[in-house]
Amino acid sequence: MNQNNKKKYTIKEIIKKIDGVYDGKLPLDHQISGVSSIENNTPNKVTFAENKKFVKKAAEQADGLVLINKNFGETDIKNPLKVEDTRFSYVKVAKLFAPIPYYKPGINDRAIIEDSVSLGDNVSIHSNTYIGENSKLGDNVVIAPGVKIAENTKIGANTVLHPNVVIERDCKLGSNVIVEAGTVIGSEGYGYITREGKHYHIPQLGNVIVEDNVEIGASVTIDRGTQSATMIGEGTKIDNQVQVGHNVKIGKYCLLVGQVGIGGSTVLGHNVIVAGQSGISDHVQLGNNVKVGAGSIVTSDITADSFYLGNPAQDRMKELKIRVLRKKLPEYWKEIKNLKKS
Amino acid sequence: MNQNNKKKYTIKEIIKKIDGVYDGKLPLDHQISGVSSIENNTPNKVTFAENKKFVKKAAEQADGLVLINKNFGETDIKNPLKVEDTRFSYVKVAKLFAPIPYYKPGINDRAIIEDSVSLGDNVSIHSNTYIGENSKLGDNVVIAPGVKIAENTKIGANTVLHPNVVIERDCKLGSNVIVEAGTVIGSEGYGYITREGKHYHIPQLGNVIVEDNVEIGASVTIDRGTQSATMIGEGTKIDNQVQVGHNVKIGKYCLLVGQVGIGGSTVLGHNVIVAGQSGISDHVQLGNNVKVGAGSIVTSDITADSFYLGNPAQDRMKELKIRVLRKKLPEYWKEIKNLKKS
Amino acid sequence: MNQNNKKKYTIKEIIKKIDGVYDGKLPLDHQISGVSSIENNTPNKVTFAENKKFVKKAAEQADGLVLINKNFGETDIKNPLKVEDTRFSYVKVAKLFAPIPYYKPGINDRAIIEDSVSLGDNVSIHSNTYIGENSKLGDNVVIAPGVKIAENTKIGANTVLHPNVVIERDCKLGSNVIVEAGTVIGSEGYGYITREGKHYHIPQLGNVIVEDNVEIGASVTIDRGTQSATMIGEGTKIDNQVQVGHNVKIGKYCLLVGQVGIGGSTVLGHNVIVAGQSGISDHVQLGNNVKVGAGSIVTSDITADSFYLGNPAQDRMKELKIRVLRKKLPEYWKEIKNLKKS
Repeated sequence: MNQNNKKKYTIKEIIKKIDGVYDGKLPLDHQISGVSSIENNTPNKVTFAENKKFVKKAAEQADGLVLINKNFGETDIKNPLKVEDTRFSYVKVAKLFAPIPYYKPGINDRAIIEDSVSLGDNVSIHSNTYIGENSKLGDNVVIAPGVKIAENTKIGANTVLHPNVVIERDCKLGSNVIVEAGTVIGSEGYGYITREGKHYHIPQLGNVIVEDNVEIGASVTIDRGTQSATMIGEGTKIDNQVQVGHNVKIGKYCLLVGQVGIGGSTVLGHNVIVAGQSGISDHVQLGNNVKVGAGSIVTSDITADSFYLGNPAQDRMKELKIRVLRKKLPEYWKEIKNLKKS
Repeated sequence: MNQNNKKKYTIKEIIKKIDGVYDGKLPLDHQISGVSSIENNTPNKVTFAENKKFVKKAAEQADGLVLINKNFGETDIKNPLKVEDTRFSYVKVAKLFAPIPYYKPGINDRAIIEDSVSLGDNVSIHSNTYIGENSKLGDNVVIAPGVKIAENTKIGANTVLHPNVVIERDCKLGSNVIVEAGTVIGSEGYGYITREGKHYHIPQLGNVIVEDNVEIGASVTIDRGTQSATMIGEGTKIDNQVQVGHNVKIGKYCLLVGQVGIGGSTVLGHNVIVAGQSGISDHVQLGNNVKVGAGSIVTSDITADSFYLGNPAQDRMKELKIRVLRKKLPEYWKEIKNLKKS
Repeated sequence: MNQNNKKKYTIKEIIKKIDGVYDGKLPLDHQISGVSSIENNTPNKVTFAENKKFVKKAAEQADGLVLINKNFGETDIKNPLKVEDTRFSYVKVAKLFAPIPYYKPGINDRAIIEDSVSLGDNVSIHSNTYIGENSKLGDNVVIAPGVKIAENTKIGANTVLHPNVVIERDCKLGSNVIVEAGTVIGSEGYGYITREGKHYHIPQLGNVIVEDNVEIGASVTIDRGTQSATMIGEGTKIDNQVQVGHNVKIGKYCLLVGQVGIGGSTVLGHNVIVAGQSGISDHVQLGNNVKVGAGSIVTSDITADSFYLGNPAQDRMKELKIRVLRKKLPEYWKEIKNLKKS
C-alpha cells in the first residue's frame, strides 16, 4: 500500500506545523514523504511513540522522524521530535500526507451537469454523476463517480462526496464536509396521516442543512424536514448506517456511532455522544454533553451532562447497578423461598 | 426554498378537492400556488390551523387560505376554508402542489435500455440508468439518475424510483410506488446449508413483489424469495434502513419504522406497526393490527390486535409493569436483607 | 419466472455431480434444464423430497427427477435419484442451473476504465462503472452496472459485484466473492481524536481484505483499517446492512446475520455466528465457534465455543433463566410483601 499522497515536507516545515523541538541526526532540509508505523519506519517517514515501550521500540527500529512527548527527556531515538501532544501532532502530520480521495480537478465528459449549475474553481467532477438545476458547488469540491445531486442544492468549498452519494433537492452542505459512499441526504421524511386504516403521505417540503466540518459515514440516511430543515451542526461526526429522521436538530461536535437511529423531530444539544446501535425516540430532547451507551433506547428527554444507558435508557450508574442485581435474580428467588420456609 | 411545483389551483378548485365551506375575502377565482406554514403565509398560499392557539395566530398572520375545522364557528381569519378533517385536508392540498421528483418525460441519451424493454407513455428516464432485458415500465414511471433495473422486472404506472435504487431480476413493483434513494429490492436471500463447517449458498430463485401504493424509504433492503416471492402488501409504508428477509410476507397498510429487521419467512398480517429498530425473528407470524414497540426483539408468534414490547417482546402492559419493578430491584434486595435479619 | 440459466445437463451428468443412484424411467441421456418445487415439477426439472410427506407428494406430482435419501427404500416416485444428503445434493444441482447475475463477457463502452487497469480473461464490465488506476481484475469477474472501484484495488477471479457496489482504494477481494447491491467496502474508519471539544479525523491508511468465497449482502459497510487491514476470512457470509468497523478481523466461515454491527478492532475467531441486530463492542475478542443470539450487545470477550445472549450478553442458558425470573418480578414483589406482613 502507498497511502500517502505525493506531497513532501522538510523536517523544518513539519516542525513548524506542529510546533515541536527537534534534536536529531537528519538535517532540517531532509524531506519527509509520509507516515508509518514504528516497525515500517524509514528515513523519510514519520512515526510516533507514546509510552516507554514504544520509545524503546522506536529507538531500535525507527530511522525516520519520531514524535515523542516533550517530557520524555533523553532517549536513544535517532531523530526525535518533541511535542506537547504526541498523538494529536501525529494526526496533524498524517493529515498533511493523507490523499484527498477522487481529487482530480476538471469535469469528466460523462458527468451530466444542468446548464443552470454554478461551479467554483478547481472542482473535481467524475463520470456518471448528475448535478441538477440551480445547484451551486464551491471551490475544490470533489464529486466522485456515481454521485447524484438533485436541483437547488448547495455544496460548500472543499467538500468531498464519495461514490454513489445522493443529495436530494434543496439540501445544503457546508464547507469541508466529507460524505462516504452510498449515503443519502434529503430522503423524504416518514410522515403519514392515517384515515380509515390507510396511510397518506404528508409531503415533506423542508430540506437538510449540514454545517461545516461535518463528516458522514457510508450508507447513512438523513431525511428532509416536513416544513423546515433537518439540521446537522458544525463539526459533528456521523458513523456508517446511522438514520436521522425528519426535523431532527443535531448540535455541534456530536458523535453518532454506527447504526444509531434518531427519531423524527428529536433535538440533540452540542457535544452529544450516542454509542453504537442506540435509538432515540422521536420528539425528545437531549441536552448538551449527554452520552448514551451502546444498544440503548432513549424514550424521554435527557438533561445536559447526563450519561444514559439501557432499554429503556436511564442514568448509567443506576442501570449498571440494576444489571448487577438482575443477574442475581436466581439468588433472590432462593432467598425468598428460604424465607417462606422459615 | 421553493418546494411547490408550478401548478396553480383556484380557491374554487381547492374547495371542490377537499369538500370545504369557504367564507373569505379572496374571490373564488383567486389562484393558489402552494402551501406554507402560518408564519410564512401569503395571499396565494394555503395553511391550516388545528387549535385555538393556531387559529389566533392565523387570524393575525395569514393573508391566504386557512383550513380550519368546521366546528370552529366565528374567527378573525381572513380567508377561512372550513373542513371536516383539518389535517387530512391540508395533506390533500399539499399533495396537489408537491413536486414529482425527477419528473421530466423523455429518455436521456445516457440511459442504457435493452432492446426488449417495454416502456409506457410519458416515462421519465434519466442518465446513467440501466434497464435490463424484458423489463416493462408502466405509464408515467420516473427513473431517477443512477437507477439500475435488472432483467424481467415490472414497474407499475406512476411509480417513482429515486437515484441509485437497484431493482434485481424478476421483481415486480405495482403502481404508485415510491422508492427512496439507494434502496435495493431483490437482493439474494441469506440462505445457506452448512456441511463440515462450510456454508453453501442455496440459490434464491424467487423474486420480490411490491403491491400498489407502497412507499419504501432510503437504503432499505428486501431479499428475493427462495422459491417464491417476498411480498410487500398494498399501501404498506417502509421507513429508511429497514431489512426484509427472504420469503417474508407483509400484509396491507403496515408501517415498518426505521432500521427494523424482519427475519426470513416471517409473516405479518394487515395494519401491523413495527416501531424503530425492532427485530422480528425468522419464521414467526404476527396477526392483523399487531403493534410492536421500539427496540423490541420478537421471537415468537403474536396474535392479532396485540401490542408487544421488550427484548424478548411480550404483552406491552406486562412489559411496562416489569420495567417498573426492574427499577426497584435495589429496594427488593434491601427488603430481602431486612427480612433475613428479622 | 424463469430463474434457471440456459445450461442443460443429462441425468447421467447430474448423477455424476452428486454421486447418486438412479432408478427411474427417464433415460440417462434425458436432458434436465433446471430445478423446481415438487408442485411445479416437469420431466426436465429436478426437485427433492426430504420426508415421507414430500415423498408421497412427489410420487403424485413429480414427472422429473426427484432427489431422495438413499435410505428411503421403495417409493412410487417415477424418477428417483437416491443420494446421501438430499438437501445438500439439491443445493449442488440448483447451483448448476443458477444464473450468474450480470454475466455478459465484454466491456460496455460506457464503462470508464483507467489505462493502468489490468483485466483478466472473460470479464463482464457493464455500463456506468468506474475502475480506478492500477486496479487488477481476475478472470471472469462480473462488474454490474453502476459499480465504482477506486484505485489500486484487486478483485479475484469469478467475483461478482452487483449494481452500485463501491470498492474504495487499495481494497483486495479474493476469488468467488459475491457482493450484493449498494454495499461499500473500504469506507473511511470512524477514528477521531478529540481536543477541546472538537473532533479531528485520524487518517485511515489501511485497507480491507476480503478472502475467497466470502459472500456479502446488500447495503453492507466495511471500514478500512487505520494502519493495516480490516479482514474478512475465507468462506464467511455476511447478510444485509451489516456494519464492520475499522481494524476488525473476522475469521473463516463466520455468519453475520442482518443488521449486525461489529465495533472497531474487534476480533472474531472462525465459525462464529452472530444473529440478527446484535452488536459487538469495539476491542473485544470472540473465540472460535462462538454464537451470539439475536438482539444482543456484547461488551466483553467471549471464550471459544460459548453461546451468548442478552443486552449485555452473557451465557445463553443463564440469560434464559433470568429472562424467566424477570417475568416473575410481580410475583416476587407480592411474596416479599406477604413475608413482611407475616
